[in-house]
Amino acid sequence: MKKLAIGVDIGGINTAFGMVDEQGELYAESVISTRKYPHLEDYPTYVADLAEAIRAMASSLDFEYELVGIGIGAPNSNIHNGSIETPANLWKFREEETNRDEQRRVFRLAADLSERFGGVKTLITNDANAATIGEMVYGNAKGMKDFVMITLGTGLGSGFVANGEMIYGHDGLAGEAGHLIVERGGRTCGCGRQGCLEAYVSATGIKRTAFDLMAKMTTPSPLREVPFSEFDAAMISKAAAAGDPLAKECFRFTGEMLGRALADIVTITSPEAIFLFGGLAKAGELIFEPTRYYMEQNMMFPFKNKVKVLPSGIQDKNAGILGAAALIWQQC
Amino acid sequence: MKKLAIGVDIGGINTAFGMVDEQGELYAESVISTRKYPHLEDYPTYVADLAEAIRAMASSLDFEYELVGIGIGAPNSNIHNGSIETPANLWKFREEETNRDEQRRVFRLAADLSERFGGVKTLITNDANAATIGEMVYGNAKGMKDFVMITLGTGLGSGFVANGEMIYGHDGLAGEAGHLIVERGGRTCGCGRQGCLEAYVSATGIKRTAFDLMAKMTTPSPLREVPFSEFDAAMISKAAAAGDPLAKECFRFTGEMLGRALADIVTITSPEAIFLFGGLAKAGELIFEPTRYYMEQNMMFPFKNKVKVLPSGIQDKNAGILGAAALIWQQC
Repeated sequence: MKKLAIGVDIGGINTAFGMVDEQGELYAESVISTRKYPHLEDYPTYVADLAEAIRAMASSLDFEYELVGIGIGAPNSNIHNGSIETPANLWKFREEETNRDEQRRVFRLAADLSERFGGVKTLITNDANAATIGEMVYGNAKGMKDFVMITLGTGLGSGFVANGEMIYGHDGLAGEAGHLIVERGGRTCGCGRQGCLEAYVSATGIKRTAFDLMAKMTTPSPLREVPFSEFDAAMISKAAAAGDPLAKECFRFTGEMLGRALADIVTITSPEAIFLFGGLAKAGELIFEPTRYYMEQNMMFPFKNKVKVLPSGIQDKNAGILGAAALIWQQC
Repeated sequence: MKKLAIGVDIGGINTAFGMVDEQGELYAESVISTRKYPHLEDYPTYVADLAEAIRAMASSLDFEYELVGIGIGAPNSNIHNGSIETPANLWKFREEETNRDEQRRVFRLAADLSERFGGVKTLITNDANAATIGEMVYGNAKGMKDFVMITLGTGLGSGFVANGEMIYGHDGLAGEAGHLIVERGGRTCGCGRQGCLEAYVSATGIKRTAFDLMAKMTTPSPLREVPFSEFDAAMISKAAAAGDPLAKECFRFTGEMLGRALADIVTITSPEAIFLFGGLAKAGELIFEPTRYYMEQNMMFPFKNKVKVLPSGIQDKNAGILGAAALIWQQC
């Protein structure tokens, strides 16, 4: 009988899920709104509705299968406890709530979902770690024992694999390369500190760079026609591809900041390869070329010209669902 | 029959070795000069003399034992290949050598030594990794799955353990935290780059800080009586312990640089504890207090007030020999 795992990818807006085999083939997929369940007390209904939607999707399969487990990728997840812990954008306190004990916002989703599927093995980790395991199980990191995944979205996520295993750390929260301090006293970061890598290298980061450069440079650019509030990173890619010097400088600078940080990361874990995944990575050589150049420029000599910087192999697939399901396949 | 491992600690001046049981008890120890064998062509004699000296030491034991293996800690060592690769201070080319192919300076010491002891299991790694394993097997990291070791000597070495295993990296050279760039365009480092952590945090680093502060501050200090060439880090500890403000500022600054770097390291591997080992660590609260303070000041919130900064538990023992022997015990 065919073995399938369920992968669940929880974002702030939607929760996507699907049934995946060990080769990464997706047999069914569906989605529910996450945003429809914004408050703490909506969580039980969210779990019930999610379970029901998963069952509906599963019943669409016209063959028999064995369910081997459920893997979940979600923000602020802790694999050790199977929980989502005090997430910034999920199941929040209502405005009028006075008892704001954050311990009330630790959601034991792995156990809560497993219970509804006969106690099947259910694992949860953050989305960057899930993508990392997806890369290892189905992607370009197949067979690699030591690699790093960098996910470039609104922020910068990362996952580290050493000796063939994810580094979760003592508290399950390891792999926050987006919050390496790369510029002391630099840009304010959403984490409350200053100068974090993700304030420079992410969709938001490169947008901030564009506005910084509009101030610093006098070069004309079509980017000067768009207000900050309507601006998005894709406009920079488009302008750079058309040869706009300011947009190209945005990518050069972003690659410099990323390359420097990667050179530091290599001194710690000395990976075989570093994979770039997500929106910015889709800009191709615009981002890969300066990243590689500045990584090598800043690399300590024993590590020079050894570490590959490669595109993710799950970039164009449904990486969120696949990565979450890979949590299960990795342990089978 | 008692099981013993041989631990060999190779430094630029001496090679110390001893016979160690699984509890870290040392039954015999001895030493030969490393400096007596300075050139490439001295290496075979070095191996022969080392083996003979080990045999002489072993024959001093008045009980029977089973030799389970030989562990070696040495600079520039690669555990994957069992070799010491192009070491800066060992078995160098003679002045007059014209064929300076560095591949000739890859020394397969694990195989060469094993051969002389009936093919017994022989492993080699760098001294900081050996100390890390020593901490795990006999020291304060017993039972920990995720920790970091920082060795403070002339330079700054480090070892990372995740999921209970050393992170050696793809090329066997991982764990060079001394070469994280902490000050872009900062102090020149022996590695040829600028601003490396060990240029600030090490015996050499704090000495450089003392001279920088003598230039920047006008405070009187007994340290101003000593020329650079005769100065050593112990003088700063002594002056600080006696209340000298300039010497105390040296430690505060060193702790700030180390604390910042540790906060970055925690975002990557999220360890349970960080151990400080070596000369500077012996200064006790002079270095621990500012290190902890600035680590927490710079820590991203999910990691705050969780990570212990502790003294090494093998600090006062013969850590070099014990750590090297622990390489064998860890794998038994």
